[in-house]
Amino acid sequence: MVTEAKRTKMKIPEKILATIKKEKKMLIAAHINPDGDAIGSSVALSIALESVGKETFVYCRDPVPEFYRFLPKQNIFKTDFKNFLKSEPILILLDCNSPERAALDHYKFRISIVIDHHQSEKKFGDIRWIDRETAATGMMVFYLIKALGIKLTKEIATNLYTAISVDTGTFRYGSSAEVLKICAELVESGAEPNLIAYDLYDTWDRKRFNLLMKALSTLEIKKTVAMMHITKDMFKKTGASFEDTENFSNFPRMIDSVNISALFREVGRDMWKVSLRSKGVFNVAEIAEIYNGGGHKNAAGFRIKGNLKSAKKALLEASQKLKVQVRTKTLKVRSKE
Amino acid sequence: MVTEAKRTKMKIPEKILATIKKEKKMLIAAHINPDGDAIGSSVALSIALESVGKETFVYCRDPVPEFYRFLPKQNIFKTDFKNFLKSEPILILLDCNSPERAALDHYKFRISIVIDHHQSEKKFGDIRWIDRETAATGMMVFYLIKALGIKLTKEIATNLYTAISVDTGTFRYGSSAEVLKICAELVESGAEPNLIAYDLYDTWDRKRFNLLMKALSTLEIKKTVAMMHITKDMFKKTGASFEDTENFSNFPRMIDSVNISALFREVGRDMWKVSLRSKGVFNVAEIAEIYNGGGHKNAAGFRIKGNLKSAKKALLEASQKLKVQVRTKTLKVRSKE
Repeated sequence: MVTEAKRTKMKIPEKILATIKKEKKMLIAAHINPDGDAIGSSVALSIALESVGKETFVYCRDPVPEFYRFLPKQNIFKTDFKNFLKSEPILILLDCNSPERAALDHYKFRISIVIDHHQSEKKFGDIRWIDRETAATGMMVFYLIKALGIKLTKEIATNLYTAISVDTGTFRYGSSAEVLKICAELVESGAEPNLIAYDLYDTWDRKRFNLLMKALSTLEIKKTVAMMHITKDMFKKTGASFEDTENFSNFPRMIDSVNISALFREVGRDMWKVSLRSKGVFNVAEIAEIYNGGGHKNAAGFRIKGNLKSAKKALLEASQKLKVQVRTKTLKVRSKE
Repeated sequence: MVTEAKRTKMKIPEKILATIKKEKKMLIAAHINPDGDAIGSSVALSIALESVGKETFVYCRDPVPEFYRFLPKQNIFKTDFKNFLKSEPILILLDCNSPERAALDHYKFRISIVIDHHQSEKKFGDIRWIDRETAATGMMVFYLIKALGIKLTKEIATNLYTAISVDTGTFRYGSSAEVLKICAELVESGAEPNLIAYDLYDTWDRKRFNLLMKALSTLEIKKTVAMMHITKDMFKKTGASFEDTENFSNFPRMIDSVNISALFREVGRDMWKVSLRSKGVFNVAEIAEIYNGGGHKNAAGFRIKGNLKSAKKALLEASQKLKVQVRTKTLKVRSKE
């Protein structure tokens, strides 16, 4: 795998620049259950394009989670795009690469642009810019905004810095000199790194913290796979919400013998939503794809039917099918990167 | 308080450069109970100075903790400097500013250089370079090495990147465009950001993780002060060691209502070692100084006699004496930075 550090500056397809320059109206769409990269990238691109006279509609099926509402202008997301569609906008799909992922599969667009960095790739879009090696869609939007000659404002910088932070665990994975340099430039443009880290990591309410403690108390490690679960009852008892569990699966990854960390959340009768995190070389998107899910190399997810025991068994079986095997502790990130 | 971002490039006292250029033999000393900044800065400076023909002896009273042993050349630390002293080296004190902090108070040196960024300042040293606004001593050593015209090698870069990472929680506090740019340069010189983050954060053994869970189960929050404790019995039951508790006090800081987080560790009969972490404006070095401890604005520590109850009471009383009050939840980092 080519690492960020070894690559030269990102190449933006000329057609994207030409199309955006020419067109006036854009529907910018982020994926369902939006994360910080999807939200920050969409908001930043909208602010940038509006600043040069374009009209944008920023769409996401699901609301912005509570803990991303510190982002400037995150409230521009709307869902009622029917009227806007009458003006025949082009589509810019961000941080995903299929209309299904954005709940837009029932709509047609004159031109569809796809800007994404996910591992799981669908054949969709008239102009496709998919760079699997990039740490965050926010990086791609950064280069796009610069290439369009648009000035980075504090609001744009804050959204992009957050997008990149979220997808790299604030420079703990997928980082590189390129990531750090871009983020230094975003700070010089007004992003406040300590404030953003505070907003991202240090504003948990007590309910959320209590739920994390409950989840961690269910931890079991099989070979190098850590598994935790949260039942509906645990949500009820703590009063925490589903979206509060974002990144819970990161915690067991801190244990040296763990290569893959999975969180099972009960979302219905005999239905589990599984969130996966991994270290270094272990590509959990491969596991998620087996069960029709998707994601990145080190962060992915899927849904599975069955009771908790069978769901966990399914995960363990899938983890044995990884191209890079996770069976032994010796195959750690250190020996492979 | 002047933030990093607003400052221009660091000014190194000319006398430090002249003295280091002139002298041949240096005792480089880090503080007792060394952390990543002390270790990385000392090792990096030694490698750099040796590369231009100086002879260095790298001293720390205490051994390098297990989880910093991934650092290249961390094994150069030695304690038997008696013979080296005969050659009359100068002293370079790193990441602390008094001979007591380095367990060197019974020795005299021809010339003593102090390079430090701590809040608690003692009047010691012939050439003093103390910059309280700097995120890490590693930043100062970076500028020093550059000013001396010494090439950054992969080993130097890895040590300095780690030093800065440790003192900023990998760019989550005390970060700035300057910090990110320096670290980008260190990555370009060979530091591997993902590997270092892995070594710092994702290599906990199960004992350490179990002890963290036990500590978190003792969490209580009084006003905005979170307190956890670890008894000797908890160490014994988990098999984890004292040094394993490094950064445990960071975890409760993630809760929004917490401004100060304290970990009480039983170190003897009616004796507790207290480790403090804080958010943004809250200067825990002020608390530590009341009890003859010390540290940085957002990370400090002290020892206190008494039973657990009285030790906690003492902390709560001291926290009420902070210049910036911690009484109410409204006085959060966001409103002040």
